Amino acid sequence: MKTSLDCLPCFVRQALDAARLVSDDPSLHEKIVRELLERIGWMDMGQSPPALAQRIHRRLRELAGSDDPYAAIKERQNRMALGLVPSLRRDIEKSADSLATAVKLAVAANIIDLGAKTGLTEDEVLATMRNASSAELTGEFPSFRDAVAHAKNILYLTDNAGEIVVDRLLIEQLDPARVTVGVRGAPVINDAVMADARAAGLPDIVAVIENGSDAPGTILADCSEEFRRRFREADLIVAKGQGNFESLSDEPYNVWFLFKVKCPVIAARSGLPVGAHAVMHTAEMVSA
Amino acid sequence: MKTSLDCLPCFVRQALDAARLVSDDPSLHEKIVRELLERIGWMDMGQSPPALAQRIHRRLRELAGSDDPYAAIKERQNRMALGLVPSLRRDIEKSADSLATAVKLAVAANIIDLGAKTGLTEDEVLATMRNASSAELTGEFPSFRDAVAHAKNILYLTDNAGEIVVDRLLIEQLDPARVTVGVRGAPVINDAVMADARAAGLPDIVAVIENGSDAPGTILADCSEEFRRRFREADLIVAKGQGNFESLSDEPYNVWFLFKVKCPVIAARSGLPVGAHAVMHTAEMVSA
Repeated sequence: MKTSLDCLPCFVRQALDAARLVSDDPSLHEKIVRELLERIGWMDMGQSPPALAQRIHRRLRELAGSDDPYAAIKERQNRMALGLVPSLRRDIEKSADSLATAVKLAVAANIIDLGAKTGLTEDEVLATMRNASSAELTGEFPSFRDAVAHAKNILYLTDNAGEIVVDRLLIEQLDPARVTVGVRGAPVINDAVMADARAAGLPDIVAVIENGSDAPGTILADCSEEFRRRFREADLIVAKGQGNFESLSDEPYNVWFLFKVKCPVIAARSGLPVGAHAVMHTAEMVSA
Repeated sequence: MKTSLDCLPCFVRQALDAARLVSDDPSLHEKIVRELLERIGWMDMGQSPPALAQRIHRRLRELAGSDDPYAAIKERQNRMALGLVPSLRRDIEKSADSLATAVKLAVAANIIDLGAKTGLTEDEVLATMRNASSAELTGEFPSFRDAVAHAKNILYLTDNAGEIVVDRLLIEQLDPARVTVGVRGAPVINDAVMADARAAGLPDIVAVIENGSDAPGTILADCSEEFRRRFREADLIVAKGQGNFESLSDEPYNVWFLFKVKCPVIAARSGLPVGAHAVMHTAEMVSA
């Protein structure tokens, strides 16, 4: 999908958040924000938000002199999520519909997104996860169950650190033997990379591949040839989060999007209200 | 107060809101937002948010070819508020403390602020006003009552259209004979100007003066000599809204600020939480 003008203030906010993460120096914050304001003013809005965010965050890392400003935060998010796993696993085990419960947990965990919100607190995440198994899913869960039942080769694209730990519980339900997990090829915001897949213990149960890109989404043209091959070969793709939705919802593939609707732009595009826990297939998309 | 980096994404959002108000043409929206992104990147953060917003909105009106993009909205807000007046007046009359109730209503009506929020709905305003007389005031209302009791010459600085209609109810309680009301000298966002004072019927009960400025606040150096004289002569100034707070909270005058805390920047500066209904004197300010 194209970038909305409404995404621009959000990019400016993200730049400021990231600047504050990498440094305590207000003059560096100001330098970063001023330069990015100017760059954002020149960007090509025909591209998707993750394509623009990719460029913003690359420059941000240069200005900040850090390859991974969110490293410490991602570690903390993984640790917090790992602490929740025993109780979430019990939620799934005692549930009458373990696939539905695992999907609910995985969608709820998509709240752990530092692109969408400044100052997300651990309390907010914990509150969301506590209520996750009773939260309503919006969309086509029965069709998703059906698609999963018939799939032979599932590619599961993760979104954020912390969230990926909860994704593991859903991947276990999907039957790991037929699942490949995709992570970003390099750090961007708090998106999950190989280190986070390892923190979640995913390489012990499935094949995990990097996508070769540092976009906070899945821009196929920017991904490695190996990743694109796996993408084409999969007969079912599960894509977590808004970034993957923004970058893949126009692609002609069999993609199921699992995400929390976090802003009015995505609400308009998906036809779902802000706050919805979405299970949505490419075919159901509101036309752009 | 100086402008925070956190104000910048908000300026971008304001520019987009205003662009959409003046035109249905997405290419004009884009042109306006792109140019303002660049300008915002060059602004002097040592100035107050209303000083920067003044320049942004001037340019916005030029680009949009409209002297008053919010004219129709302001009329609607005044009409809506006038519809509430009979029931709000009854709230005050049946109250044991009519001054406290009138202050509560006037502070609650400060929600009618199109600078602080995109897409404020009439329902939100109505819900806020319905609960206004039972809402808690944060700050020093007893000292305010005391100051009012001893004042001889009160200057009451209004903030927004719609809100100014509710201000009239408080002004009636202050004894109109000793009150002068100040409005902005020219349109900016939905701030109240002379036409809005007339819609509220204020010239029938008090002297109303324009401040000579098109800033969404009160920047004394930008106001007319006549306004500054009235300002200096007043022994008590009541200033409504965040814009007046942002521009006057460093000035060495006897100012009481009545406003709703609408963003984290003002929360930090005032020491009050977002959402608070504030009654605050200059002397209580958190140091910058």
